[in-house]
Amino acid sequence: MSDKNQPISGNDLARFSGPNTFMRLPAVNALDGLDVAILGIPMDIGTSWRSGTRFGPKQIRAESAMIRPYNMATGAAPFESLQVADIGDLAINTFSLADSLRIISESYDAILTHDVIPMAMGGDHSITLPILRAIARKHGPVALVHVDAHADVNEDMFGERETHGTVFRRAYEEGLIQPDKTYQIGLRGSGYAASDFTEAQGWGFQQFPACDLWHRSLSDLGAEIRRDIGDRPTYVTYDIDSLDPSYAPGTGTPEIGGLTTPQAMELIWSLADINIVGCDLVEVSPPYDTSGNTALTGANLLYELLCVLPGVARR
Amino acid sequence: MSDKNQPISGNDLARFSGPNTFMRLPAVNALDGLDVAILGIPMDIGTSWRSGTRFGPKQIRAESAMIRPYNMATGAAPFESLQVADIGDLAINTFSLADSLRIISESYDAILTHDVIPMAMGGDHSITLPILRAIARKHGPVALVHVDAHADVNEDMFGERETHGTVFRRAYEEGLIQPDKTYQIGLRGSGYAASDFTEAQGWGFQQFPACDLWHRSLSDLGAEIRRDIGDRPTYVTYDIDSLDPSYAPGTGTPEIGGLTTPQAMELIWSLADINIVGCDLVEVSPPYDTSGNTALTGANLLYELLCVLPGVARR
Amino acid sequence: MSDKNQPISGNDLARFSGPNTFMRLPAVNALDGLDVAILGIPMDIGTSWRSGTRFGPKQIRAESAMIRPYNMATGAAPFESLQVADIGDLAINTFSLADSLRIISESYDAILTHDVIPMAMGGDHSITLPILRAIARKHGPVALVHVDAHADVNEDMFGERETHGTVFRRAYEEGLIQPDKTYQIGLRGSGYAASDFTEAQGWGFQQFPACDLWHRSLSDLGAEIRRDIGDRPTYVTYDIDSLDPSYAPGTGTPEIGGLTTPQAMELIWSLADINIVGCDLVEVSPPYDTSGNTALTGANLLYELLCVLPGVARR
Amino acid sequence: MSDKNQPISGNDLARFSGPNTFMRLPAVNALDGLDVAILGIPMDIGTSWRSGTRFGPKQIRAESAMIRPYNMATGAAPFESLQVADIGDLAINTFSLADSLRIISESYDAILTHDVIPMAMGGDHSITLPILRAIARKHGPVALVHVDAHADVNEDMFGERETHGTVFRRAYEEGLIQPDKTYQIGLRGSGYAASDFTEAQGWGFQQFPACDLWHRSLSDLGAEIRRDIGDRPTYVTYDIDSLDPSYAPGTGTPEIGGLTTPQAMELIWSLADINIVGCDLVEVSPPYDTSGNTALTGANLLYELLCVLPGVARR
Amino acid sequence: MSDKNQPISGNDLARFSGPNTFMRLPAVNALDGLDVAILGIPMDIGTSWRSGTRFGPKQIRAESAMIRPYNMATGAAPFESLQVADIGDLAINTFSLADSLRIISESYDAILTHDVIPMAMGGDHSITLPILRAIARKHGPVALVHVDAHADVNEDMFGERETHGTVFRRAYEEGLIQPDKTYQIGLRGSGYAASDFTEAQGWGFQQFPACDLWHRSLSDLGAEIRRDIGDRPTYVTYDIDSLDPSYAPGTGTPEIGGLTTPQAMELIWSLADINIVGCDLVEVSPPYDTSGNTALTGANLLYELLCVLPGVARR
Amino acid sequence: MSDKNQPISGNDLARFSGPNTFMRLPAVNALDGLDVAILGIPMDIGTSWRSGTRFGPKQIRAESAMIRPYNMATGAAPFESLQVADIGDLAINTFSLADSLRIISESYDAILTHDVIPMAMGGDHSITLPILRAIARKHGPVALVHVDAHADVNEDMFGERETHGTVFRRAYEEGLIQPDKTYQIGLRGSGYAASDFTEAQGWGFQQFPACDLWHRSLSDLGAEIRRDIGDRPTYVTYDIDSLDPSYAPGTGTPEIGGLTTPQAMELIWSLADINIVGCDLVEVSPPYDTSGNTALTGANLLYELLCVLPGVARR
Repeated sequence: MSDKNQPISGNDLARFSGPNTFMRLPAVNALDGLDVAILGIPMDIGTSWRSGTRFGPKQIRAESAMIRPYNMATGAAPFESLQVADIGDLAINTFSLADSLRIISESYDAILTHDVIPMAMGGDHSITLPILRAIARKHGPVALVHVDAHADVNEDMFGERETHGTVFRRAYEEGLIQPDKTYQIGLRGSGYAASDFTEAQGWGFQQFPACDLWHRSLSDLGAEIRRDIGDRPTYVTYDIDSLDPSYAPGTGTPEIGGLTTPQAMELIWSLADINIVGCDLVEVSPPYDTSGNTALTGANLLYELLCVLPGVARR
Repeated sequence: MSDKNQPISGNDLARFSGPNTFMRLPAVNALDGLDVAILGIPMDIGTSWRSGTRFGPKQIRAESAMIRPYNMATGAAPFESLQVADIGDLAINTFSLADSLRIISESYDAILTHDVIPMAMGGDHSITLPILRAIARKHGPVALVHVDAHADVNEDMFGERETHGTVFRRAYEEGLIQPDKTYQIGLRGSGYAASDFTEAQGWGFQQFPACDLWHRSLSDLGAEIRRDIGDRPTYVTYDIDSLDPSYAPGTGTPEIGGLTTPQAMELIWSLADINIVGCDLVEVSPPYDTSGNTALTGANLLYELLCVLPGVARR
Repeated sequence: MSDKNQPISGNDLARFSGPNTFMRLPAVNALDGLDVAILGIPMDIGTSWRSGTRFGPKQIRAESAMIRPYNMATGAAPFESLQVADIGDLAINTFSLADSLRIISESYDAILTHDVIPMAMGGDHSITLPILRAIARKHGPVALVHVDAHADVNEDMFGERETHGTVFRRAYEEGLIQPDKTYQIGLRGSGYAASDFTEAQGWGFQQFPACDLWHRSLSDLGAEIRRDIGDRPTYVTYDIDSLDPSYAPGTGTPEIGGLTTPQAMELIWSLADINIVGCDLVEVSPPYDTSGNTALTGANLLYELLCVLPGVARR
Repeated sequence: MSDKNQPISGNDLARFSGPNTFMRLPAVNALDGLDVAILGIPMDIGTSWRSGTRFGPKQIRAESAMIRPYNMATGAAPFESLQVADIGDLAINTFSLADSLRIISESYDAILTHDVIPMAMGGDHSITLPILRAIARKHGPVALVHVDAHADVNEDMFGERETHGTVFRRAYEEGLIQPDKTYQIGLRGSGYAASDFTEAQGWGFQQFPACDLWHRSLSDLGAEIRRDIGDRPTYVTYDIDSLDPSYAPGTGTPEIGGLTTPQAMELIWSLADINIVGCDLVEVSPPYDTSGNTALTGANLLYELLCVLPGVARR
Repeated sequence: MSDKNQPISGNDLARFSGPNTFMRLPAVNALDGLDVAILGIPMDIGTSWRSGTRFGPKQIRAESAMIRPYNMATGAAPFESLQVADIGDLAINTFSLADSLRIISESYDAILTHDVIPMAMGGDHSITLPILRAIARKHGPVALVHVDAHADVNEDMFGERETHGTVFRRAYEEGLIQPDKTYQIGLRGSGYAASDFTEAQGWGFQQFPACDLWHRSLSDLGAEIRRDIGDRPTYVTYDIDSLDPSYAPGTGTPEIGGLTTPQAMELIWSLADINIVGCDLVEVSPPYDTSGNTALTGANLLYELLCVLPGVARR
Repeated sequence: MSDKNQPISGNDLARFSGPNTFMRLPAVNALDGLDVAILGIPMDIGTSWRSGTRFGPKQIRAESAMIRPYNMATGAAPFESLQVADIGDLAINTFSLADSLRIISESYDAILTHDVIPMAMGGDHSITLPILRAIARKHGPVALVHVDAHADVNEDMFGERETHGTVFRRAYEEGLIQPDKTYQIGLRGSGYAASDFTEAQGWGFQQFPACDLWHRSLSDLGAEIRRDIGDRPTYVTYDIDSLDPSYAPGTGTPEIGGLTTPQAMELIWSLADINIVGCDLVEVSPPYDTSGNTALTGANLLYELLCVLPGVARR
């Protein structure tokens, strides 16, 4: 048995018991010695349609209790290679989006003084902008794998420039990401004009609309992205609404015709050996997730992301 | 038949059809000639626990389709006496609480240039502060009938001074209400210290905790309040969480041991002949209202408030 | 042990097993020897707002599995005194209200060739008119205990004269009931004019609005009704929406401010020793009954009605 | 900006606000100048299993609020080419299927005195027969694209010849459709005999069972149908239960093994440039649609149909 | 501020954040210095109808996040007087009821080596028998306040002598309780014979059927019980199904006509100054608690019990 | 018309009526003359995560009411070839897993004294071990087609050797199955070590992980299995969690990335002409099946299994 943190085994304590941490890992306050810090950013005030993602981290953790440590499909054994813990939630200001974004950014600066990979559970997608600011301060502009139904490149919304729909325009403008190493996968739905997508393509963003991905494996696409990224530091931001609503009904702005969970796993599996420096999983909205399976899916995708982090052994 | 606006009759058009206005009244933009303007303020960014009240006005309107024009219990026939219409929703900024409160206040100033009684459907309770500001600008400090599980007199929350939990401290400080003609009915639950309630009592607020009202009619209490108010201009703010969660599960901060719907109706019936200058019904959260009956209750309480407005004939 | 039909005991077969009959009684086709015939009339095409009561009998039977044979509160032991069975559902025509009403009436004529008390599970309230026609053909005009939020005395609805809202005007016009021995209990909600109620009062109907019954026991009212009825043949029609929506959310036209289940039981208990010749429990709509407790309540009220039928021993 | 009706933008008014019209388009009564009239036919009395479709139009409209005007996948900009409005619901008689079918037929006759394409939101599938009668009176027998789990070619049901399961036998018998240009796509499930399907094939109907369409794109099939139809006037009737229940749980008669939303969109996209003279989307049943995503899917499919109507520009 | 454990304040960390402990108190493993140990016993294999209580502790903890430290109604400030912590869940064997009961008993023996009051969150009611065994080993036979819809005095169920329906017969037989100081409050529903209740009365049990408590305050009853108990060590076992299903739908064996939450609070408030040596709150079943309000109610009743423990100051 | 038992036709009795047997077939007690006996085993005490499968048989039967007798896709007409009936539920002991397993085994021994194929509706997967014991006593070691997300080959769980996670290790050890004719299809999810799967492969089990089956038809795999089995007596055990949670949310241990219902049907269709001697469909958990579609899917898969039993004619 590894000397690293291990999830509580379902044979030691019934899965419906135990701490409500991710995979029932230890809850820690100190980051020393951690390779991976899992955290929640419970917030929904940056969303434009259905709210409820403020309860996302809580339900993702609850559903993660069923995940066991070893990845039967890929052979990854993350808890043998990495020291992982759940560091709790950021203390956002639930009455102010602007203040919350500031808190996120500063908290990430503090986290990144350690040599740790932060994995965030949202929260709506507005959290990714302050995260990227901190990430870029440490790592410079990063490659970005962005899986989402929406490009999130609006200029503003109701006059506000920092919401869940403007993240990646701001990230581009601020130089937080490498535009030609930015991959937007799963885009679909309706918009206001053709330029909704083409402008970002002009910046260099590589966009992969969902309708071009239907009926096929994403393994090849994933491999292509991995080769294109090379050894650049890379951030992965995973919006659960990239999935079809049949797989992920519990989200704020569902769009039909989306990706499948097999495709999601193929895509993540392809990212092994990339230099991932952080990632997030956003937009799980428990009030709209009557079966709990959206949170279950979110928890599993986070686990799959954990399994492709640098240094994870496979057996 | 009256020459005034009438709800569409369920015998003319099936109740599941027709416009999604309050009681299927006409939707109008111009306020001229209106006695009562019903409006929605769809907002949940001022709430501290469960969100979802942004969908409150939509669901209250949907459930109001079952209400008929004549009040069998009281004999009130509001649509024979008053010209009533649904003026739609205020265009709040869903990403900024502060900006939304400003919009509400300015919108009310505009509405109140007409001789009209605004009836607002929330939204979380933070909407009542900007409403009271506009009301006080027109009418001076008003008497306040505040039915709620919570006194909402916090100093601040996460450093913010204008949220759904600070409304009536601010209203007191700003002189928007007459403290000794402020009645808080249905208070209960836990707090941080005895002073949570006693401080407001020191300002003059008359508080009626729920546990003092259990097992009995509120007709006497209502009559006493009516006498105490006299002919003062009065604002009524009705938080749906004043009701017990068995009656109103779909709300953001439910507290057990609350009022019953019979008590709610008795209380409102007692307010007939008071000089009501405005009212609101807040905190209906549809995602938590799986049966739709919280919105149904909210719609009916608004109807009962409509039936006690000045000038409504009874037959 | 009695030689009569007994519900399957929860100690013989787990309550989630067994036939989906009322209280897991035997399902029979032949009526010979039966004292009480329980039947379903699964229909919702006579309803004006939410549908779904076509699944009412199925869910009431499912929830009735938890009821045991002996009435702890009243001492009634119905299965020791009466031969009771579930005779299944009437084969209504789900595409035609008129044809279904004809089928119900003819089926009841056939049932009533036996000396049996029919207890019907609805279905919407339109079923009661054809039932009363058959009942009156056998027993003459009956006393009527009608517990409901609505008087159901409309002239017509969309030009149709036989719907769930016109039942008791038709019954009055056709002389199926004794008007001055007709008791409408629990009335409330809004209407079109004061005459909605007063006209029926003019026929002799005794109306007991819900608001006159709040905060008190119905035992006295029940006793008064029992004395007034004397030994007349009596039909009891129980609309589940007489109850407050907090007790019975799963119904088609809920109205706030209704009766409580303690009041419902008190009322039924008071009817012991009346000459009940038939009864029904209508308007349980499973799609709107997310907890199943409306059907549970319906099942229990039917059981309580069974316990006050003529000839039931108490111990 | 076009001079035609535009959906209210999500940047002008929060998506949870505004009129409950399709895509928040204007509600109009007059048909003059309209190219497309969107209407609701809220009815469920023609259904044989779960009811609830009477609330279909209301919920489809509610969920349509999230759709933006421009089609990112196909480049269609329907509101630049066509004058579109929501003309409300037909005033059906909810107590009589026969009378409602008459009302639908007469209403369509009135609508079709204008040069407008009607797009109907059901309601159960029985609405399509009276629609086709009116359509054929204007256009003669039409080609029919019928996407559905069921062929709906029963002779009768409970002796009734006009229900949601007999529509296309009647349409064939009455000469409303061109039998050899009738395409039934997505058929599956169980039946009473092989002839359930083969008889209709004998009339000329082209049937495409779902199991022949699994695991592949429907673009080729769609193209083939488009070529076969040529320039004939064509009606498209879309039963939401053609989709697998994982995509559309909220429907009255779900059948496993159905189509996917990608297939649905591929199929509709293939119909561009066909002479569509009317269409409908039926069988969305909100009480069984706990996530709202069935209505969301219905709204999107209607939008996709709008995008392939004659004259829509693509950019 | 007290030097004792305090719940995390909602002003320090948003209520939807933080550890999933009771009231967000510290989670501890060591019992030293604790006055009160809150623990979960997540189990549903002792139940006879609906299962799901294995998730009870998890959801009660989740809903407890909204409770603040000070009791506004009674003035109790429990966290100033007592050192309270959440000691997690017992590691029951979810495949064996007998083994789980053994584990519970042994765990309680270990807990009771400390001078601590254990407050358990069930789980089904079968947990109370092994708890009482350990309690009696330490304190001798205790007075028992048992609030429940059911007397739970069956001889056996399916031949099993230790289930959720046999607890108090066993406790009586084994001398764990003082029969004449055993109070069963809220009993109702159906049974198999009059002796279901009368036998236990013969042992000395004082039974208070729900129907004798309708429409009135329980303060007097509570006071009477308190006087009768005197200074005896007392155990309080609270079955959530004592409440009416309108207040607590999420439970395994709901019975209509139950207590109200005001009555529940009055009863608990009356128990102040009794020598409570332990208590439990059982039968919250989250899968049947669609609004979460049953767990919310359970959390609040536990809080009220905490507020009447010996030594709690009131201000 | 066949002289064999037929499901009640939806044209004779509305589908929401009739007995709650599988497909509304006759309920029988005697097995004489039956070819196929459908039975329920309502149990959830062998499950490790979410409970609720005790209500599985009841809901599967309820949803099966919509299935008609003839298989449109395969031409199978099972009720013309086979005498089929619903023999009700086994009377398990809901308080003891061990005793229930004994009851199942003995009940199957009694059933198998007849020449009948038992088709069981679970219940959790622990029921399959005692079934296989009885099957092997009659038929010797059988080939096993095991469709499941989990291999269920744990050594023990909480020290228990017979639970829903240990079934097939026990079956292997006891020689109930032919290891090299054991096919495990749909495996996925996380585990404790690579050996979780590889050990069973060492015994001869043929495992087909879900990720190897994504994006393609299972017809070829099915055909290959059929050839490999030859004429061996074969048992089919179908865990509904083999399906992706989007198709079957209502189950106890859902795993993302599962099979589709088209794949499930293809697989079953391939098994025609195999010598199936028994089968089961397990792990449908109604409390987590908010749309009812998991039970609907289970009912349909049982029907498809019925259609491939030996002797079923196709036309």
